[in-house]
Amino acid sequence: MERLIERAQVLIEALPYIQRFAGKTVVIKYGGAAMVHAELKDAFVQDLVLLQLVGIRPVVVHGGGPQINDWLEKLAIPSEFVDGIRVTSAEAVEVVEMVLVGHVNRTIVQKIQSVGGRGVGLSGKDGGLVRARRAPPKQTSTGPRDMGQVGEVVAVDPSVIDHLDAAGFIPVIAPVAAGENGETLNLNADTFASALAVALKAEKLVLITDVEGVKDAEGKRITNLTASEARALISQGTAKGGMIPKLLAALADGVHQAHVIDGRVPHAVLLEIFTDRGIGTLITP
Amino acid sequence: MERLIERAQVLIEALPYIQRFAGKTVVIKYGGAAMVHAELKDAFVQDLVLLQLVGIRPVVVHGGGPQINDWLEKLAIPSEFVDGIRVTSAEAVEVVEMVLVGHVNRTIVQKIQSVGGRGVGLSGKDGGLVRARRAPPKQTSTGPRDMGQVGEVVAVDPSVIDHLDAAGFIPVIAPVAAGENGETLNLNADTFASALAVALKAEKLVLITDVEGVKDAEGKRITNLTASEARALISQGTAKGGMIPKLLAALADGVHQAHVIDGRVPHAVLLEIFTDRGIGTLITP
Amino acid sequence: MERLIERAQVLIEALPYIQRFAGKTVVIKYGGAAMVHAELKDAFVQDLVLLQLVGIRPVVVHGGGPQINDWLEKLAIPSEFVDGIRVTSAEAVEVVEMVLVGHVNRTIVQKIQSVGGRGVGLSGKDGGLVRARRAPPKQTSTGPRDMGQVGEVVAVDPSVIDHLDAAGFIPVIAPVAAGENGETLNLNADTFASALAVALKAEKLVLITDVEGVKDAEGKRITNLTASEARALISQGTAKGGMIPKLLAALADGVHQAHVIDGRVPHAVLLEIFTDRGIGTLITP
Amino acid sequence: MERLIERAQVLIEALPYIQRFAGKTVVIKYGGAAMVHAELKDAFVQDLVLLQLVGIRPVVVHGGGPQINDWLEKLAIPSEFVDGIRVTSAEAVEVVEMVLVGHVNRTIVQKIQSVGGRGVGLSGKDGGLVRARRAPPKQTSTGPRDMGQVGEVVAVDPSVIDHLDAAGFIPVIAPVAAGENGETLNLNADTFASALAVALKAEKLVLITDVEGVKDAEGKRITNLTASEARALISQGTAKGGMIPKLLAALADGVHQAHVIDGRVPHAVLLEIFTDRGIGTLITP
Amino acid sequence: MERLIERAQVLIEALPYIQRFAGKTVVIKYGGAAMVHAELKDAFVQDLVLLQLVGIRPVVVHGGGPQINDWLEKLAIPSEFVDGIRVTSAEAVEVVEMVLVGHVNRTIVQKIQSVGGRGVGLSGKDGGLVRARRAPPKQTSTGPRDMGQVGEVVAVDPSVIDHLDAAGFIPVIAPVAAGENGETLNLNADTFASALAVALKAEKLVLITDVEGVKDAEGKRITNLTASEARALISQGTAKGGMIPKLLAALADGVHQAHVIDGRVPHAVLLEIFTDRGIGTLITP
Amino acid sequence: MERLIERAQVLIEALPYIQRFAGKTVVIKYGGAAMVHAELKDAFVQDLVLLQLVGIRPVVVHGGGPQINDWLEKLAIPSEFVDGIRVTSAEAVEVVEMVLVGHVNRTIVQKIQSVGGRGVGLSGKDGGLVRARRAPPKQTSTGPRDMGQVGEVVAVDPSVIDHLDAAGFIPVIAPVAAGENGETLNLNADTFASALAVALKAEKLVLITDVEGVKDAEGKRITNLTASEARALISQGTAKGGMIPKLLAALADGVHQAHVIDGRVPHAVLLEIFTDRGIGTLITP
Repeated sequence: MERLIERAQVLIEALPYIQRFAGKTVVIKYGGAAMVHAELKDAFVQDLVLLQLVGIRPVVVHGGGPQINDWLEKLAIPSEFVDGIRVTSAEAVEVVEMVLVGHVNRTIVQKIQSVGGRGVGLSGKDGGLVRARRAPPKQTSTGPRDMGQVGEVVAVDPSVIDHLDAAGFIPVIAPVAAGENGETLNLNADTFASALAVALKAEKLVLITDVEGVKDAEGKRITNLTASEARALISQGTAKGGMIPKLLAALADGVHQAHVIDGRVPHAVLLEIFTDRGIGTLITP
Repeated sequence: MERLIERAQVLIEALPYIQRFAGKTVVIKYGGAAMVHAELKDAFVQDLVLLQLVGIRPVVVHGGGPQINDWLEKLAIPSEFVDGIRVTSAEAVEVVEMVLVGHVNRTIVQKIQSVGGRGVGLSGKDGGLVRARRAPPKQTSTGPRDMGQVGEVVAVDPSVIDHLDAAGFIPVIAPVAAGENGETLNLNADTFASALAVALKAEKLVLITDVEGVKDAEGKRITNLTASEARALISQGTAKGGMIPKLLAALADGVHQAHVIDGRVPHAVLLEIFTDRGIGTLITP
Repeated sequence: MERLIERAQVLIEALPYIQRFAGKTVVIKYGGAAMVHAELKDAFVQDLVLLQLVGIRPVVVHGGGPQINDWLEKLAIPSEFVDGIRVTSAEAVEVVEMVLVGHVNRTIVQKIQSVGGRGVGLSGKDGGLVRARRAPPKQTSTGPRDMGQVGEVVAVDPSVIDHLDAAGFIPVIAPVAAGENGETLNLNADTFASALAVALKAEKLVLITDVEGVKDAEGKRITNLTASEARALISQGTAKGGMIPKLLAALADGVHQAHVIDGRVPHAVLLEIFTDRGIGTLITP
Repeated sequence: MERLIERAQVLIEALPYIQRFAGKTVVIKYGGAAMVHAELKDAFVQDLVLLQLVGIRPVVVHGGGPQINDWLEKLAIPSEFVDGIRVTSAEAVEVVEMVLVGHVNRTIVQKIQSVGGRGVGLSGKDGGLVRARRAPPKQTSTGPRDMGQVGEVVAVDPSVIDHLDAAGFIPVIAPVAAGENGETLNLNADTFASALAVALKAEKLVLITDVEGVKDAEGKRITNLTASEARALISQGTAKGGMIPKLLAALADGVHQAHVIDGRVPHAVLLEIFTDRGIGTLITP
Repeated sequence: MERLIERAQVLIEALPYIQRFAGKTVVIKYGGAAMVHAELKDAFVQDLVLLQLVGIRPVVVHGGGPQINDWLEKLAIPSEFVDGIRVTSAEAVEVVEMVLVGHVNRTIVQKIQSVGGRGVGLSGKDGGLVRARRAPPKQTSTGPRDMGQVGEVVAVDPSVIDHLDAAGFIPVIAPVAAGENGETLNLNADTFASALAVALKAEKLVLITDVEGVKDAEGKRITNLTASEARALISQGTAKGGMIPKLLAALADGVHQAHVIDGRVPHAVLLEIFTDRGIGTLITP
Repeated sequence: MERLIERAQVLIEALPYIQRFAGKTVVIKYGGAAMVHAELKDAFVQDLVLLQLVGIRPVVVHGGGPQINDWLEKLAIPSEFVDGIRVTSAEAVEVVEMVLVGHVNRTIVQKIQSVGGRGVGLSGKDGGLVRARRAPPKQTSTGPRDMGQVGEVVAVDPSVIDHLDAAGFIPVIAPVAAGENGETLNLNADTFASALAVALKAEKLVLITDVEGVKDAEGKRITNLTASEARALISQGTAKGGMIPKLLAALADGVHQAHVIDGRVPHAVLLEIFTDRGIGTLITP
């Protein structure tokens, strides 16, 4: 009985967090380990469904790099990275879309269903959600490099998400959209999630990573970052690689609060929202 | 961190219960120790607010016998009990109403407010909630005994509760109502709660007591009771005193599921709804 | 038949007033003789129900000084007045709340019910309606005097009234609220009504008294007063005693139109709203 | 002041009637003296607007025989009556429609406007309100007689009235409709009103006449009639002339309650609804 | 089959126009040949119903000069024109209203019904749609000339149209309204339509005429006119007679886009809205 | 101008069809040539958007056999057909889902967007739309044959489609769903469309094929078929191959009206709905 009472106490401690976030939208960039290990995947979809039941509106944007690599390899389509971004040929982008929209996305949707939630899979093409355009060539040491069908967000029309949210569905979105001529474009999931967070006036943008959080020059996790500190980390070269697009996503105009959290911790999303002890790095404007 | 994850796990374990009861009404008869000890009182209102936040609709009916006794004593108004029911004179019923509606009720409402909920205090008179009539004389060994202004429910119009519920308030109701000539009547809180549960088509009627649950002839708690078993407990004299009106309340036509739970356990209401291990006695029709 | 036609004519004469006030809120401070004499009480609740049926939204705030005095006396709790305001001890405030919320309030609610209306009794604690704080000590000739649990309004959240109004209930409110630490506070009913009128953007604040209206230095009723004239009456000492809080209530920022009317006249409220011949004093900003 | 209080008393006496009929539809056949004398016309539209303000839904169907006669005469179009019904030629029906829809109807609408109501004029053609067909030839002593463009109701689609009602307009309807080939047909206003009352599930059908009510064989007004008594009055020849279509309208299947009232009494409609002393004849099924 | 496919192609070509105008209001001044020839009348109401089915909101204002002339003549009521406007005596205005509201208007409503639409006939009096006043005397060569009951729009309350539109009815409006003393006034249909277009924030004001469009000094149709060019046409005397009120209607403050189109062309309204090749003159501010 | 008027005439001829089908749902099984040739693809999405604009609710279910074959071949995954149904291994079903959901589906969605509509791509997994189970083994000449991850519909919950429809989106659905253990199943698109038509109470089920319609024994197109005639065509062996699942889909209990139409004709869907000359075979129960 004592244990039961302790459990009730844990539920009660969630009360102020539920009160604070009820009716608010949280955009979650999902990826990395949390999308690979069975136990972490289960924990993630449970978190989503619980959030929704207590009145919070989760919106998921997912990546899928490793899965794309697998299929490109099976199909012997070569693929190259410049500054961590995949140069995406017309041949490759077709595979990217199939894998993200037709495979990774539906696996998440089905998992949500398995714990009693109702996910709906979307890409930027659905309901005119995202208008995109080709990204400009990358400046490299050997001159500008055309990135192929890599895109960037031009505009977001969140009405399809609003309707699904209001009807009790959890939107799960693959970062693929159409360009000006209807061609399929591959977008960075962090940036895509950030643009959605802005358009949906989300309370939080949660970026799931495979590290403890943003680190300082000594490699120690930073719990709180202001925008200017975050910019300094980039300009001083302390933040590197995949952390750069995450920080840029967090710094986008209109993002209210961004969290870089450690997806290797089970229920990281729930802990981030339902406890005061931050479990990653909080970036505020 | 491990402890945090355990806590998340506890939250997740509530998921199926939240899913099962979302949108359902639970009528709770509140009284006894749970209404006296500071810690239990705090736990009780936290339970109410949490239930409401996760989409369950709690409706509270409270008693207040000890507080009534105190004030009658202060005012030197004599008071007598027949079969556990207070013979209520015109002088006494005025005090009963003041204490229940003006004191006990508002204390609960204020406590709900203190943990971030929005309670609204009502009695059977408000919004025409309950129409009552004088109870018939009690048969006693010395002949029929007029009970004074003791009433019984004639009809319930739950619209005021429905409106408050829909607007996010928690109704807290004192078991006082007007009789056919507008006179104030004192009603049994268990019976009153049972009538509300029926009118509101409540999923559960939860009766908080100061014992572990309904007990068998050997004094051991019974976890599950059918209606006919419950009736047998009364007719065989195993159930006695205050347990009899509780069992009768549970057995009323239209009650879907009744629970007699131990209010001395902190968060008893939450545990009853959010765990499978019953913490009292479940009575089903 | 002639008499019947005359009666129809009377109904028709109400037409322009109904048209002018349909959909508007009228906050009525109820007290004095109108709350004592059986005939006046009946007339008052009939007025409320008629107003509501023709589309006007009455909100009642009531006092209860004499009833409080009676009960304090019965309980031998001493009580003292400073400048017409009761110094309210912790012991006394408990009685004040019980009498106002549990007795006076429910009597009005029940009376409304008896003429076919649906009243709902509230205090400032219900639904977080009024946040209050302790009033500062009174300056007296013998130095500052602590008033005990006398409060003043800090903020009004009228949503519970709005919901009840929209659903066709008549809110009846006792001027008791919780302070910053949850302690019960006793508020002046005139000021309380004035604060509600402002929060509800009421068309009128009607203050029922036991005099003909505000009087000039010669003791003659004044039919119309501007804010500056009203302030002059106070500063010149023409207005005295209980009339001062009424005038201050009428002068509060945001009150649209205030009426001091004579509650000894049956149907005074109806006459005030449905005739052009003022039956008291109109105070306009 | 005494007179004022008496007036308030009259308003209060209307209370139970307002409560009884709030939200109910009353279809009123308007005609005769009440449509001619300036004072009676004013009283009639005041009644309509007052009814609507207190939550009752009046629907007006009007005649216009005398006005039609005037214009036919001006235009030298001959017109003949068979059993009180106008044989309506193609030439005449054009004038009938112009006078009813374009003149009589708009005069009523404008009068409603002048006392602050919002009338909307309609005929059976508007919004597909009434589908009609040519009435069969009349059997006369000289054989069957073709009645020209006289019609009878085939079906009613009350949606245009429902929409206008819900938006706070008072529908005023001329008894003209289109036949199967789109030709204009002239309908009996009593029968037309009766068909609307049935389609709108009206609480009352009020037929305004220029007599005191239905009379018995001695010429005394009958206050209450059952359907079978009403049928007997017709078959025995006690009811004659224009009273026959009124009784038939009252007897139509689906009419809930019909009143034949004396339009020469000012405010006859109001008196009928707001007093118990019937002012005409009540016919119940 | 080939022909069928061509027909499908024609439907598809309407797609961008439907998309552009869906949900928009178009006010159409209807008159002239289009209101006389059977084939043109049929085509006009088909256009209305089709527009409404594809989500456009047509509002019709009609004239009726020739019909008024006929009836005035039949009734031997003299009638005179000053600057193309009928001097309207009290005797004449009664006929004007009857003919417009009771005859012309209902013919259009009935025709809409015959092709499956649901028209509702209104005048400026219905639902308080238009408040008017007497027009000032006309300046003529022989001094100022009183125009009798000729009116001009003072204010428009479009709520009755909004409600009918939302409920799927097509409003058909006769340009008659009440003046300040309730007297009937005769208004110019072009100006009336223009005032409605402004009040309804219409996308287009379409003025149907019996000419090809506005013409230049050489008598050639002008396809596009700016406001200043239109004003120049008037001041230079190029625009004459009935074209002047049309241009003034088009130039009124708040008109978004006005079209003067040739009503002698079948389906002129549909062609104007559903093709790019203008079929008259477009006037833009 | 003449040509323009003819075009208007064509639009007007669509009027009765639009009126008949407004607000009705049409489920369209899309496949074959209509999904391959650029011109036919354009025509198809134009048809969808036009239907929706005129108030009809199109729901698309698509196949994708040739595209699946291509990708299976590229990936060297062997694939075998039994009775025209693909035996689907675990390896193959992953490709089937990616190609249908991630490629074919999004191409249609994007094409709808390009003509101004708003498509949303779904599979049976989204929003719990379709619950499926493994199909039983096929009886073949060499004994029962396990079909691998081929599924059949168990239940349809159309709420996600209803919400998207109501919000103005066009649902495009790939016939993939989850089985009892969450495994991905490949369903026959004809049967899937038929199950949706029943769940959505669709007015029509339109099956697009590459033939003129259902043919009789002499190879001539049959324009109308009753259910029993259709069953006879199957049992007599006249209907063969891919036509059998189409006829079975058409014959399912609850299908209101089914059409087998020739997708090689541009705008076949529009012609089917907007003309009386059937362009395929109509099957009625």
